[in-house]
Amino acid sequence: MNAPALKQAPLREHTRILGIGAFRPDVIVTNEDVCQWIDSSDEWIRQRTGIVTRHRADRDTSVIDMAEAAARSALENAGIEASQLGAVLVSTVTHPYATPSAAAQLTDRLGATPAPAYDISAACAGYCYGIAQADAMVHAGTAEYVLVVGVEKLSDFIDNADRTISFLLGDGAGAVVIGPADSAGIGPSVWGSDGSKHQAIRMSHSLLDIRDAELASVAAVGGTLDDAPKASWPTMRQDGQTVFRWAVWEMAKVAQRALDEAGVTADDLAAFVPHQANIRIIDEMVKQLKLPEHVEVARDIVDAGNTSAASIPLAMHRMLQENPSLSGGLALQIGFGAGLVFGAQVIVLP
Amino acid sequence: MNAPALKQAPLREHTRILGIGAFRPDVIVTNEDVCQWIDSSDEWIRQRTGIVTRHRADRDTSVIDMAEAAARSALENAGIEASQLGAVLVSTVTHPYATPSAAAQLTDRLGATPAPAYDISAACAGYCYGIAQADAMVHAGTAEYVLVVGVEKLSDFIDNADRTISFLLGDGAGAVVIGPADSAGIGPSVWGSDGSKHQAIRMSHSLLDIRDAELASVAAVGGTLDDAPKASWPTMRQDGQTVFRWAVWEMAKVAQRALDEAGVTADDLAAFVPHQANIRIIDEMVKQLKLPEHVEVARDIVDAGNTSAASIPLAMHRMLQENPSLSGGLALQIGFGAGLVFGAQVIVLP
Ligand SMILES: CC(C)(COP(=O)(O)OP(=O)(O)OC[C@H]1O[C@@H](n2cnc3c(N)ncnc32)[C@H](O)[C@@H]1OP(=O)(O)O)[C@@H](O)C(=O)NCCC(=O)NCCS
Ligand SMILES: CC(C)(COP(=O)(O)OP(=O)(O)OC[C@H]1O[C@@H](n2cnc3c(N)ncnc32)[C@H](O)[C@@H]1OP(=O)(O)O)[C@@H](O)C(=O)NCCC(=O)NCCS
Repeated sequence: MNAPALKQAPLREHTRILGIGAFRPDVIVTNEDVCQWIDSSDEWIRQRTGIVTRHRADRDTSVIDMAEAAARSALENAGIEASQLGAVLVSTVTHPYATPSAAAQLTDRLGATPAPAYDISAACAGYCYGIAQADAMVHAGTAEYVLVVGVEKLSDFIDNADRTISFLLGDGAGAVVIGPADSAGIGPSVWGSDGSKHQAIRMSHSLLDIRDAELASVAAVGGTLDDAPKASWPTMRQDGQTVFRWAVWEMAKVAQRALDEAGVTADDLAAFVPHQANIRIIDEMVKQLKLPEHVEVARDIVDAGNTSAASIPLAMHRMLQENPSLSGGLALQIGFGAGLVFGAQVIVLP
Repeated sequence: MNAPALKQAPLREHTRILGIGAFRPDVIVTNEDVCQWIDSSDEWIRQRTGIVTRHRADRDTSVIDMAEAAARSALENAGIEASQLGAVLVSTVTHPYATPSAAAQLTDRLGATPAPAYDISAACAGYCYGIAQADAMVHAGTAEYVLVVGVEKLSDFIDNADRTISFLLGDGAGAVVIGPADSAGIGPSVWGSDGSKHQAIRMSHSLLDIRDAELASVAAVGGTLDDAPKASWPTMRQDGQTVFRWAVWEMAKVAQRALDEAGVTADDLAAFVPHQANIRIIDEMVKQLKLPEHVEVARDIVDAGNTSAASIPLAMHRMLQENPSLSGGLALQIGFGAGLVFGAQVIVLP
């Protein structure tokens, strides 16, 4: 068939980050606290990861609560009203409902209804994945202003007695507003995945095991309930060395490609804001990228731990608070994590 | 600070759907089957919903398995190799792991590594949300070819004894490939949310209730385990009438705006492919939009039930199989569901 011509929204040449916000929950968990639960030491944790404390949310503080706090501060910083938002995107893996999304409720709380709202699942790369999408939507005219939130309450999805990953993780939220600009404020997204390593960071078992254990219990009423398989709450696990090696070898290359595709060099950077996974990974990337002395490097991990999708905006927010003159300079940001997935961009700091 | 200029990918004027694929799982659940579990009748279900049967996946068939089958058929139909994909997007609310995403594993199974991969949560609007994002990414040069999969194994997240929603739901997967085009193949996305109605379609309780019941059991070791709160597997519920009224009153307006923004009228359409939620909602929208006789209307719900994010591509795939001459004609598609969220576009049929 021959279709009549469709109209389209006009394309927009340039986009940028207009403002940033953050929320750090109240509870401080020290390495001493951690060592009550696993066989470790403050010294080991500091040396091997750089982490001294992590923030965690209390029972009554939800992913949506944290997202709301960060989003309000980002909107204010950007000078944008919630009602101007053309899309709300929440990157999280710790919203404890299959549906509806955290984003739909967040949008309503902010007064941004009827903006489109959705959650994305891309783990510790989720913030950079969100920037890639928001950037594309503003270019394409699909939305004018987009709120991107990275938020995690990882403390709900860990087993404190697990020694593979739990001691690294913290809770928190960071948010930015993306919109049209007069010159390029977001370089090309260099992003990807390697699902062959999907076991490297994973849940201990399927949520469905809980249901199946329940079904088996019901079926076992005639027999004995003790025979029914038991399933407990699934929590995160990782192969630390696999992730460490992948991050150190592959992620510096991805970061370099983000510089190349943006047409800039390490010398042009004002800041480097990598995902806060391990201070040794950060230091190794700094070395491999040959970042000059003048480039500020985010090391928020020291007191925030690894907050997954929230770590980059949290670290960037803090850096801009401590050093406001960086605003307008270039930052290289890179996220990587479970999937495995990764994403990097050079951006103009808000 | 003053930043050196950033390079960007060149923008692309036009995009379209290049190919479509689908997967329908084997198990057929009849209204008679349903009536073993709830107080209802074949006649009531047919009259009030239009549904006669639904397909459901067996225990061994996962969301990723169904997504893979639909994706392979979409890639073949589009004539695109997996290795050409620049992004893989899976819209689902029934992947039973907090992380990693279904998309990362799917990407690897297809041989599309290292394409970026992520899941999105936008319930029954998830497919149209995916099209909005893929369209934007191709326009913006963030990706050249994008795979969008809508897939659900809703049978894992329902309680067959629930009378509010479970009897409506089926399993399945549909997929499309989006890429650059010589003329406009995807009209403006009219999408949004109303989170004030987040209770209208919801989970019975939080996943965290399971964990909390477990923690309480552990704490109760000194006392009696019977005192510990019990939590069972959360399943879907809805306020049928709230959703029905919202769909009938609000969604026809959204569909009309999608036509207006694309600069076409109901007369220009070859097909109407709404989310398959209830045949009475479909018929009401047809009436309100004053669709002329020549417009083919998808009524896949009769034997597929409501498959959430999968329903539109499943229905479109079937329509094109039964009526290949529609290819190249215009279709109006609209999804809506838990959030509440909605999305609509006019597209050129692949
Ligand atoms: C988790 C991680 C800190 C472990 O550090 P590591 O140096 O790789 O540690 P290894 O697994 O090689 O173990 C070295 C030793 O430390 C011990 N160890 C492991 N975890 C420990 C812990 N939490 N506390 C104390 N000792 C620990 C091991 O038992 C081992 O002891 P041994 O030499 O006597 O056998 C590190 O692998 C890491 O940070 N990986 C990347 C994590 C990451 O970024 N994940 C998230 C990505 S989003
Ligand atoms: C769920 C739905 C089919 C119920 O139909 P309805 O016509 O609204 O039914 P009501 O809730 O008004 O109930 C009418 C009667 O049917 C009965 N009833 C409700 N569910 C029933 C069922 N599954 N089987 C038999 N009878 C049922 C009620 O008890 C009530 O009986 P009463 O008149 O004796 O009190 C309908 O509301 C619906 O399709 N809503 C939209 C659902 C949807 O699209 N959801 C997904 C969006 S993605």
